[in-house]
Amino acid sequence: MPVVHVSLIKGRSKEVKKAIAQDITESIHKHSGAPKEGTTVIFHDIDGDSWAAGGTLFSDRAKK
Amino acid sequence: MPVVHVSLIKGRSKEVKKAIAQDITESIHKHSGAPKEGTTVIFHDIDGDSWAAGGTLFSDRAKK
Amino acid sequence: MPVVHVSLIKGRSKEVKKAIAQDITESIHKHSGAPKEGTTVIFHDIDGDSWAAGGTLFSDRAKK
Amino acid sequence: MPVVHVSLIKGRSKEVKKAIAQDITESIHKHSGAPKEGTTVIFHDIDGDSWAAGGTLFSDRAKK
Amino acid sequence: MPVVHVSLIKGRSKEVKKAIAQDITESIHKHSGAPKEGTTVIFHDIDGDSWAAGGTLFSDRAKK
Amino acid sequence: MPVVHVSLIKGRSKEVKKAIAQDITESIHKHSGAPKEGTTVIFHDIDGDSWAAGGTLFSDRAKK
Repeated sequence: MPVVHVSLIKGRSKEVKKAIAQDITESIHKHSGAPKEGTTVIFHDIDGDSWAAGGTLFSDRAKK
Repeated sequence: MPVVHVSLIKGRSKEVKKAIAQDITESIHKHSGAPKEGTTVIFHDIDGDSWAAGGTLFSDRAKK
Repeated sequence: MPVVHVSLIKGRSKEVKKAIAQDITESIHKHSGAPKEGTTVIFHDIDGDSWAAGGTLFSDRAKK
Repeated sequence: MPVVHVSLIKGRSKEVKKAIAQDITESIHKHSGAPKEGTTVIFHDIDGDSWAAGGTLFSDRAKK
Repeated sequence: MPVVHVSLIKGRSKEVKKAIAQDITESIHKHSGAPKEGTTVIFHDIDGDSWAAGGTLFSDRAKK
Repeated sequence: MPVVHVSLIKGRSKEVKKAIAQDITESIHKHSGAPKEGTTVIFHDIDGDSWAAGGTLFSDRAKK
């Protein structure tokens, strides 16, 4: 039943997301006992213009 | 004032979202008394590669 | 598989949440065809000091 | 360390997001003391068909 | 209509939240033109045991 | 820089959350290359009355 929302910079491959989703599902099952089939993992693919750390957009940061 | 975020697999039509948003707004009004004009419903349209249940991506699941 | 997060002012009864969760689950099933058992509804119960509309906290607004 | 998710109607320019992210980061630093470099601001760009207020989609509302 | 979710470590005062909510609402209005009364800011007050940066819980980090 | 929100039924121990946060941070680092210190994991501890699957509240389900 656990629900996990992962916000990542856009551009991660399907294989990367698959591997991360498997690990998260496995980890929650292992440590909390929640059945794997009940865990949902949702990725939000965020554009570099839509993500700021320390007040600087990722797309500007990458330029430096 | 209630805020509702709905994550759905990408591809639902405008009509489907409209009908769901109306029902959610009506239901919250009916059961909690919150005025309808104060309720916000936001849909997040998620790609099949960005959604996993039980550790399996939706896009892989659909293939089976 | 749809996931719904509902943010409400703290204090709604269990019965209110139950009725809203049933309506949302039914509506998504009816309009999108998603099986009811796959829909998750999560309520976030927000304190009146932690919610602002138009820059005014709910707890200050209620006083007026 | 604070994390801020901002849902906006799609179409805001990079400059608008940059200015809002800077202001939010500055404000949280000023009022709570959190170091600026630890604050993350993520914008979710929502389509007009995926946003409803008072049960009416933004894309229908704009037409009136 | 913009919706802002702010996750902060539990313990910020009402005055801190009020000031941050006012600044965010003002900034979004100034830079995007959205009317102030349409902006919602929701704070999620997170326990130190429920927040990790770099794999370390905030409550463990504070001890060092 | 990745941000992960995990919604779990209230009552998981600090040790469980710590182990899950470490695994998620490690997995994202391993598969996407994101530096570990940039990953934030936030747990939302949800009451059994505030979580529904298939239209049934967790607190009612547990009784059966």
